[in-house]
Amino acid sequence: MDIIRQYIEQIRPLDEQAMEAAQRRLDSLTKPPGSLGKLEAVARQVAGMTGSYETGKAGEGILGKKAVIVMAGDHGVCEEGISAFPQEVTPQMVQNFLNGGAAVNVLARHAGAEVICVDMGVCADMDHPGLVNRKIRKGTSNMAKGPAMSKQEAAQAVQAGFELVGGLADQGFRLFATGEMGIGNTTASSALLSVLAGIGPDQAAGRGTGIDDATWQHKQDVIRRVIEANRPDPHDPLDVLAKLGGFEIAGLVGVILGAAARRCPIVIDGFISSAAALVAARIAPLSVGYMLASHLSREQGHGKLLEAIGLAPMIHMDMRLGEGTGAVLCFHLVEAAMKIINEMATFESAGVSKG
Amino acid sequence: MDIIRQYIEQIRPLDEQAMEAAQRRLDSLTKPPGSLGKLEAVARQVAGMTGSYETGKAGEGILGKKAVIVMAGDHGVCEEGISAFPQEVTPQMVQNFLNGGAAVNVLARHAGAEVICVDMGVCADMDHPGLVNRKIRKGTSNMAKGPAMSKQEAAQAVQAGFELVGGLADQGFRLFATGEMGIGNTTASSALLSVLAGIGPDQAAGRGTGIDDATWQHKQDVIRRVIEANRPDPHDPLDVLAKLGGFEIAGLVGVILGAAARRCPIVIDGFISSAAALVAARIAPLSVGYMLASHLSREQGHGKLLEAIGLAPMIHMDMRLGEGTGAVLCFHLVEAAMKIINEMATFESAGVSKG
Repeated sequence: MDIIRQYIEQIRPLDEQAMEAAQRRLDSLTKPPGSLGKLEAVARQVAGMTGSYETGKAGEGILGKKAVIVMAGDHGVCEEGISAFPQEVTPQMVQNFLNGGAAVNVLARHAGAEVICVDMGVCADMDHPGLVNRKIRKGTSNMAKGPAMSKQEAAQAVQAGFELVGGLADQGFRLFATGEMGIGNTTASSALLSVLAGIGPDQAAGRGTGIDDATWQHKQDVIRRVIEANRPDPHDPLDVLAKLGGFEIAGLVGVILGAAARRCPIVIDGFISSAAALVAARIAPLSVGYMLASHLSREQGHGKLLEAIGLAPMIHMDMRLGEGTGAVLCFHLVEAAMKIINEMATFESAGVSKG
Repeated sequence: MDIIRQYIEQIRPLDEQAMEAAQRRLDSLTKPPGSLGKLEAVARQVAGMTGSYETGKAGEGILGKKAVIVMAGDHGVCEEGISAFPQEVTPQMVQNFLNGGAAVNVLARHAGAEVICVDMGVCADMDHPGLVNRKIRKGTSNMAKGPAMSKQEAAQAVQAGFELVGGLADQGFRLFATGEMGIGNTTASSALLSVLAGIGPDQAAGRGTGIDDATWQHKQDVIRRVIEANRPDPHDPLDVLAKLGGFEIAGLVGVILGAAARRCPIVIDGFISSAAALVAARIAPLSVGYMLASHLSREQGHGKLLEAIGLAPMIHMDMRLGEGTGAVLCFHLVEAAMKIINEMATFESAGVSKG
């Protein structure tokens, strides 16, 4: 766990001076003060991350290259019958990502972003030149009967994510999004939310990929049993992550911490990604400064997750697919924010009267 | 008014068959049914507008060329002291649009869209090769003392907007957004909302570009006087538009009807654009099928306007600038929707198991 302590120490607070400079610039632009709302907030926050609102003007895209990191893993808790889809769909969808046919591929191409597909623990042998292999194990253990993974495995998954994003930053990537695939992972995320935010399973569990009322009730019961069987310590986020998480969720915790350490914005996707973000926030509170919420998912509990982290979503599209689809849609908005602060005329330059 | 009757007759209902074909296609794609939320709704709706979800695949952009039509006009009611900015800001901002320095220019460039800037009634002599001159008159009359314009002038402004968008459609433009500039036009829009939706001025009037409490109370009083002085007939939308509108608002009513007549999606910006959309909806209810709401403005009353039309916004950015800034940001989402339906793999083609 020493390695995670080292990661935490690498994350710096946002640069207050850069944020103040950004605010002065925003207030000089030809618009009523504050009238671009969250675009202004994003521009200010990104300036705080990178140290200047002018950062990256010369790069590819206004910030640099963009990637959505899609991590996949399987969940032993699927034995309990909590999903509308069979577990074989996880490797099938990973194959779909690698072939470029999934929703996240379409939206990433639209955004000019790369999809980095990572096997963190898929329950199948996967082999593809485009697949990043960081497999910890073929699926977590059934957490209804004991811990999903060992603390050592959780740390190993966090480390894999942290190092992956560091390597991408070395290649010029400067804007990241989280994405995931793993049949059963809304159950893991609901359990994480329930324990870390102290919310009952009836509030934390949603319909996932589309389960009926009876399966939803059953899912809540399973989450109650999971918590009962593991008794995770809410004040030890790595303990909670190991007992209730998934390999892809733990990997995303590392991705988020890694982006923060590299002072890069990380756009958080929906329910599962936000569960990883909440764990990251509890491990390293300063990492929240580097997070941008993307969409408000239809999955019950997502709003509560974002509230627990202290994030406000930008788009309300009633989406509930995961994969990073909502996050990658918001790259356009993050870039818009940086173009606004860099390209708009000032009251002075345009000769417009102030109110 | 015969001309407007002709316009109404040109607007057809959405193509039900094309929408059903779009729905079948959406349900065959590798995602849980409905899990892309509003992206799926937009794809279905655009298919209904254009007659096929495959429309425009060969064009520039997935739908064709894109334009945000920014109409400007001045408001006689400014005499009553209802705005935080002086009236001279209207022509100054038009100049800023023409120079490419305003927020809408930055966001249109980011979206790959053109800004079409139209003088519908600016209270100054404007001359610029990039400016479309459709000036009805130099500013409306003070509606606190009588009608803002004659019914004839309102019809003339609607006609100008309708014909403009028709000309752009002839040039290959297929995706439109509304935008506006006009100091005082939140007052006009609040009055329109108040009368057309039967809402009190205290609920309909907001802070505009940023007025204080006292000016806000005064603005509500002015709206009460405006309605009292004009007694518009809520069942005659052209009467309401003439008495309480602005030249840019009337022009946008024509733009919206024109886009609907040409079966093109028209993305509606914030409070003022939505007031124009409500008038268009009352003149020609079928036009609503061609409207896509963009963002939820911070301007009080915007949510009620959208509700009165029956639209749901896609993004929640706390913006309140107008100019078309929120609408042009959503071009990216409309195009994303059309790429999703055209480019994603199906369960069959990708070999993914259905739930």
